[in-house]
Amino acid sequence: MRTLKVMMAFCGTNYHGYQRQNNANTIQEVVETAVSRLLNTPTAIYGCSRTDTGVHAEQFCFSLITENPLPCRNFVRGLNGYLPEDISILSCEEVADTFHARYSCQAKEYHYRIHNSESKNPFATDRALHYRRTLQIDQMQAAADLLKGTHDFSSFCSGCTENKDTIRTIYQFEIKMQGTDCFILVKGNGFLYNMIRILVGTLLSVSEGEIAVSEIPEILAARRRIYAGRTVQPYGLYLHRVFYDTAQFTLPNADSFFGSAVSGGE
Amino acid sequence: MRTLKVMMAFCGTNYHGYQRQNNANTIQEVVETAVSRLLNTPTAIYGCSRTDTGVHAEQFCFSLITENPLPCRNFVRGLNGYLPEDISILSCEEVADTFHARYSCQAKEYHYRIHNSESKNPFATDRALHYRRTLQIDQMQAAADLLKGTHDFSSFCSGCTENKDTIRTIYQFEIKMQGTDCFILVKGNGFLYNMIRILVGTLLSVSEGEIAVSEIPEILAARRRIYAGRTVQPYGLYLHRVFYDTAQFTLPNADSFFGSAVSGGE
Repeated sequence: MRTLKVMMAFCGTNYHGYQRQNNANTIQEVVETAVSRLLNTPTAIYGCSRTDTGVHAEQFCFSLITENPLPCRNFVRGLNGYLPEDISILSCEEVADTFHARYSCQAKEYHYRIHNSESKNPFATDRALHYRRTLQIDQMQAAADLLKGTHDFSSFCSGCTENKDTIRTIYQFEIKMQGTDCFILVKGNGFLYNMIRILVGTLLSVSEGEIAVSEIPEILAARRRIYAGRTVQPYGLYLHRVFYDTAQFTLPNADSFFGSAVSGGE
Repeated sequence: MRTLKVMMAFCGTNYHGYQRQNNANTIQEVVETAVSRLLNTPTAIYGCSRTDTGVHAEQFCFSLITENPLPCRNFVRGLNGYLPEDISILSCEEVADTFHARYSCQAKEYHYRIHNSESKNPFATDRALHYRRTLQIDQMQAAADLLKGTHDFSSFCSGCTENKDTIRTIYQFEIKMQGTDCFILVKGNGFLYNMIRILVGTLLSVSEGEIAVSEIPEILAARRRIYAGRTVQPYGLYLHRVFYDTAQFTLPNADSFFGSAVSGGE
């Protein structure tokens, strides 16, 4: 038996998220169907995370177990041949049988993209939040700095129950303008349901003056969803990179900020 | 009467090019319908160029003549309200009545985008040419250098007849890699039908070793389409910027290369 670690990128616009469900088009279902066809036997895949409807991935990892000896290079080419244009396999490697895309994952880096301009961007439909007001980047960064580190993020979770483990660590949280686009980078060891979209919504509330930077510690301490900002739209969110090697993510990695993980598919 | 100079951006995927035609969805028809609705009277628009089916524009200029006193700022907002998501009005200004988007245009800058990787880019479907082979950038640039300047470009024109004026000047012709994307910038005083797509196809033939750099002068001198390379797909082509002020385009403008003209819509 071989365990394969596979990286893919997908544009999430036409999917109801990653995870297979009844009566809905999902990334998992489309990829599992293609893998099963390629390997000539029903094959399950294990994804590194669930993603919401409309959320994109520049690098998403899944693992699978197979007896098929197909070389990794042929796996990439063959699988791409069975997939639609909005899903692309970037790489494949054989790994130790202890590897699992979800449980072995050490950290994830998400980017949220905001097109900040009076006029919409015709190339960013379903790929960025269109936001017209001036962004107070310094205020947003000050709030983000207070959210970095290890906290109970209950206030930043949709539908979290009392019993759930809601402690997470954010390693990196940066806001940068690039032309008319604002990119918000969040890297952490794991994220609660809707956590990044609520974090971004809270930063927008800070920019709008509805939440003061000084209130962030109180919002964390409150441990109630109602204290944080709104949940922003999913279509500006990208899973940008997944980390399996501790050495890779404990060092600040400024270079990766604007680099596309798609280039990792070479 | 007022003459308005309007800048827009559009994603050309769903259109049969800019110019109005019977029984086909075109940018001109959609924009003229929206302008006529906004100004409450049938109004013609004059575009800076025709574009082919599937070609995009990050900055496209059109002019119009109207008696309506609507302030420019309201024109932008109002018109955007009547347009679909793949067409965006960036700016509007009142100009001298001698201005015409096409006849006043001094130069145009196009970018051609190639996703150069084994795996496709799910975010570049219909927005870049997917090309797997290694690009010989130095060879391509050497060929581009020989094509710069004032030449008879008959060999780089689809359906050019003997009588047509086929002399054009290319001011700038640069190839740059950015991650896995190759961008080809061509700036000139005007372009023949399919000229940029044939220029790019010829550079690909050079990269593939089918045309030698030293053959470029002969291809120009031949003045026959058959000597140049293939016509590449339209969907990697972007009208990036249009120039109406001579001072703007005679100086090399390296900064603009990777900047998005969409940011000009602020």
